[in-house]
Amino acid sequence: MKAIAVTPGEKGSALLREVPTPEPGPGQALVKVIRVGVDGTDDEINEGLYGQAPRGDDYLILGHESFGRIEQAHGDACGLREGDLVVATVRRPDGCPNCQAGESDMCLWGNYTERGIKGRHGYLAEYYVESPEYLIKIPPELEPVAVLLEPTSIAEKAIDQAFDAQRRLVWHPRQAVVLGAGTLGLLLTLLLRLRGLNVTTVERTSKPVPASVLAACGADYVSTRDVPVTALPDRLGNLDLIVEGTGNAQVAMEAMEILGVNGVVVLLGVSGGDQRIEVPAARINLGFVLGNKVAVGSVNARPRHFVSGVQHMLAIEDRWPGLLSQLITTRLTADEWRRAFDRPREDVKTVVEFS
Amino acid sequence: MKAIAVTPGEKGSALLREVPTPEPGPGQALVKVIRVGVDGTDDEINEGLYGQAPRGDDYLILGHESFGRIEQAHGDACGLREGDLVVATVRRPDGCPNCQAGESDMCLWGNYTERGIKGRHGYLAEYYVESPEYLIKIPPELEPVAVLLEPTSIAEKAIDQAFDAQRRLVWHPRQAVVLGAGTLGLLLTLLLRLRGLNVTTVERTSKPVPASVLAACGADYVSTRDVPVTALPDRLGNLDLIVEGTGNAQVAMEAMEILGVNGVVVLLGVSGGDQRIEVPAARINLGFVLGNKVAVGSVNARPRHFVSGVQHMLAIEDRWPGLLSQLITTRLTADEWRRAFDRPREDVKTVVEFS
Repeated sequence: MKAIAVTPGEKGSALLREVPTPEPGPGQALVKVIRVGVDGTDDEINEGLYGQAPRGDDYLILGHESFGRIEQAHGDACGLREGDLVVATVRRPDGCPNCQAGESDMCLWGNYTERGIKGRHGYLAEYYVESPEYLIKIPPELEPVAVLLEPTSIAEKAIDQAFDAQRRLVWHPRQAVVLGAGTLGLLLTLLLRLRGLNVTTVERTSKPVPASVLAACGADYVSTRDVPVTALPDRLGNLDLIVEGTGNAQVAMEAMEILGVNGVVVLLGVSGGDQRIEVPAARINLGFVLGNKVAVGSVNARPRHFVSGVQHMLAIEDRWPGLLSQLITTRLTADEWRRAFDRPREDVKTVVEFS
Repeated sequence: MKAIAVTPGEKGSALLREVPTPEPGPGQALVKVIRVGVDGTDDEINEGLYGQAPRGDDYLILGHESFGRIEQAHGDACGLREGDLVVATVRRPDGCPNCQAGESDMCLWGNYTERGIKGRHGYLAEYYVESPEYLIKIPPELEPVAVLLEPTSIAEKAIDQAFDAQRRLVWHPRQAVVLGAGTLGLLLTLLLRLRGLNVTTVERTSKPVPASVLAACGADYVSTRDVPVTALPDRLGNLDLIVEGTGNAQVAMEAMEILGVNGVVVLLGVSGGDQRIEVPAARINLGFVLGNKVAVGSVNARPRHFVSGVQHMLAIEDRWPGLLSQLITTRLTADEWRRAFDRPREDVKTVVEFS
């Protein structure tokens, strides 16, 4: 079958190549891939920054934002049947207590694997094989947008962690800020709007699709060219919830600085390198102490976040019909795959269509 | 009556002076003060850094770590009777939602008052008057050490907030680090030892009383002269819980840096000034994201923390008899009050005895 794969560690090694079609073992399902989203993680693996081939292979099939249809279900597949639409989760457990609890996103030992990233092939291929416990069934009405479920699950977990941490007090959040207006930032914004929060979404420069999506769902769009991050409290009052999705370490520190009394900031953006910057550490610390503030880091997602993501995507489709599909700005065939790694600045989500 | 009071904003203004003895209103209790602890907050108010007199007065009676006996109970005093031993809480609500919920320590509006600190007289006097909802009844066996209940309540809240925030996952904390080995650091250590955690308590230099207390309760003592904060994970493994009690902004940032996977750091130390320092921001942010880490700021305490503090002080007395009283290293009469603001470096807790 055709697959887009890299040689891990080798810069720019992504290739459309022929690989063996996987065969489902007992209880497993063979899934025919419909489309797969590409994101910054795929870019970074293709840049050779990380990524790990499965044992015994010298290549890694990329792609972790999947959407497909079950072609064969072998044995008891937990109620999944041939023809069912599915999205696969990404991380696989390593046996630590959290993984045993079904929460491999909170893995303690760090020996987890991740499809398309670390030690397991991904979904940028014509087929994949998976055990049913890692397949989330998708209702047919989400067919056009379900490829967004994996990034939605990341947003679900981030918000879930924020509200979980805030069970420590009586909390009536009103004012939320989302830093970053890419796919993740927009999904976060939509989920927070569903919860009835006022949301201000912040990006360096305004782009047409995000601007249109934010306007449609009643969120405010602020460019840091007009309003620096540190000026947001003056404009918005007490910031109850901030989600930092840029991965810019400076912005992450500013998010901690501007957080409001009793507020929570979720750190979600992966910052690379070893950047040292000067920060108003005394003010950040004092603000956290006197304001009972919380910062929570969040990575990956567990099956419950995929399942709640499905429910919330249905609710978004219901409230703002057609809005989610606006996020998919570029659709490529498998043969056009190279363009997936050379995305225009205006792009929100690029997907590769396999069938 | 005699009281130790400052002129707020005036450096070194503390004086033992004669002030009117307060008179209890309906439902209130008149409390005869037995002893009061002095801490860094009292120092800072006496340095003129903050502190606010009650409306209509030009002086502020200091002291928020109280212990006394009810001399008169007027009307229905919620089951409190003359002769009962009591400790008073510190913060008084401003009507915000959290204050209404009985959690003025999470005050949202910031218009709270605090006895001995902000807008209300404190307890460094022969008497005070209080409503029974702010008086915590003390069992007679805690008479020698109940003056430590207010700092214990701060430690209770800090640990409570950490465990509350961690309800977001399956969490089996084993390794705790307490930064700072003053009264608060030692109380935190004792509470964490009661919970069965391995505790390493860190101070710049080793002092005799803390060393003896830590050894008795089975905690480890580390001097940052021997082991820098950033080297603690190499020595101790995954740090599940860190409580930062020094108020040093550099140490607070280092605490965030060394926190383990799925861990929680409680920021508890008030850092003054506007110190800007260079920090490995990308590494701190990345660690928080990939490790699902949490930082939570904690200030003050609500009545439940005083009540759980009483229970835990009884448990500490039961498990390590006499250990708590070692923390009270200096006992002064009211006439010796000046020495309370000139404490030797070896001092842990200085108390002023009023009767």
